[in-house]
Amino acid sequence: MQVRKAVITAAGPRQNRLPLQQLVSRHGDDKTALQLIVEETLAAGVEEICVVIKPGDQAAYELASGEHLGSLHFVQQPKSLGYADAIYRAKDFTGNDAFLHLVGDHLYLSQTDVACAKQLIDVAGDCECSVSAVQATRENKLPYFGIVSGTHVAQRKGLYTVDRVVEKPTPTFAEQELVTAGLRSGHYLGFFGMHVLTADIMPAIEQVLHTDLAILPTLSDALEVLRTKHQYCAFEVQGTRHNLGIRYGLLIAQLAIGLSGRDRDLILTEMVDLLAKDIGAGAGQ
Amino acid sequence: MQVRKAVITAAGPRQNRLPLQQLVSRHGDDKTALQLIVEETLAAGVEEICVVIKPGDQAAYELASGEHLGSLHFVQQPKSLGYADAIYRAKDFTGNDAFLHLVGDHLYLSQTDVACAKQLIDVAGDCECSVSAVQATRENKLPYFGIVSGTHVAQRKGLYTVDRVVEKPTPTFAEQELVTAGLRSGHYLGFFGMHVLTADIMPAIEQVLHTDLAILPTLSDALEVLRTKHQYCAFEVQGTRHNLGIRYGLLIAQLAIGLSGRDRDLILTEMVDLLAKDIGAGAGQ
Repeated sequence: MQVRKAVITAAGPRQNRLPLQQLVSRHGDDKTALQLIVEETLAAGVEEICVVIKPGDQAAYELASGEHLGSLHFVQQPKSLGYADAIYRAKDFTGNDAFLHLVGDHLYLSQTDVACAKQLIDVAGDCECSVSAVQATRENKLPYFGIVSGTHVAQRKGLYTVDRVVEKPTPTFAEQELVTAGLRSGHYLGFFGMHVLTADIMPAIEQVLHTDLAILPTLSDALEVLRTKHQYCAFEVQGTRHNLGIRYGLLIAQLAIGLSGRDRDLILTEMVDLLAKDIGAGAGQ
Repeated sequence: MQVRKAVITAAGPRQNRLPLQQLVSRHGDDKTALQLIVEETLAAGVEEICVVIKPGDQAAYELASGEHLGSLHFVQQPKSLGYADAIYRAKDFTGNDAFLHLVGDHLYLSQTDVACAKQLIDVAGDCECSVSAVQATRENKLPYFGIVSGTHVAQRKGLYTVDRVVEKPTPTFAEQELVTAGLRSGHYLGFFGMHVLTADIMPAIEQVLHTDLAILPTLSDALEVLRTKHQYCAFEVQGTRHNLGIRYGLLIAQLAIGLSGRDRDLILTEMVDLLAKDIGAGAGQ
């Protein structure tokens, strides 16, 4: 299974300005968050990218995509109806192909020489099925994530077949239904914001979008449908993700990128310098 | 002399995206850099603001101005011809009034309870003339700033009458011509990116724009003309400025703002946390 397409969802009303923000890459280059996300996919072998945007945002996104504009397609999500609906907007783009899905408001830092998206695509290629990136997530973070329970695949570090997918479970429900053997106590497999999805996801999304639920169907709901019909795995990526949308998310992401890259010493010097001035100012008061 | 108008110049080709960047204020609120700059002027008693922008940028600036849109006027600078030309574009807006000039790519942090712009406007009100904010600037930074030499005004801390203005002097020239008595050795009075200018600046700009110079006339050239005809002072503001346009400028500005504000402990915790992970990752390699 080859993955040559990616879908980046960036139409959320609180997320849509984040991909336009300016950062400095690990290599010291000025980049928008969108450029960094696009480069994560291109480094993983992706050739064509569909960005799902809010109506009215295309000009700003084109400007922010820099030299990658030629690789991008844009589709609009007219209303903010969540990731499942957003991914479904890219149905014509993805066709029968497997694709990488990334959210537009996260940046990823690999702990190895292989970028996070590449790690995931490599595993999906071996498994020949949809695979979600996950990370061990503490119980107190359950309200923020989709959670899967899984069965460890023998002799494949960090790889699980998925037994259940639940969006933002309560701790009690998780403890009863979503424990994955082999994780530390009180930890669950939480979504990392990155999936490789086969074309089978589209009928699964269609099914949940047409179900009359009390609340908006999520991507987790569609993945729960998918896993009942098709093989579906989860993989613990070796890396960290940075949500740009939390308070100080951009600051923390930039610090983490800076400390992991070429300008590490410069960033450390600036941090120490600011702290020294800070202590100096405090002492003077 | 009252200052009720401000001109923010934001049309430079490498600066025009910076006011649109997202930051968190000292009070922990999500703000664009433009909002923070506008709030610096409003807190100093300014009521109307003219933003000099690059053609095509108005929609993005309107969006980034948030609740301050009603206080803003926009004029375009069709070509990137420097600050003197940019300020001259606001001539109809400023009319006969004195105004505060701020650059759109700097943020200011006061070391007192009084914001930097307010400190400057208060001094200009006393002096009844144009006043530039300056800071003691080391010789090795001369290539980046307009430099003034001045004569200290008796019994007014940090206030000088300006004897000469030169844009980006060489160290040799500065040592011969621009020494200001009372500063530490090897230090000069460098522009801080903030001026209160009377209406007299406009004919001075006109004069330099119509002089056939080998290089583009700068605001420093116009101020050198101004000081030969009118009283003109410089004032050492109690604060620091952060140029968003340098490498990691946004990161450093956000760290400085964060450390000076309500979320100081949170920022310190995040910094220590990242450094601990960083050391952990290093030890594991």
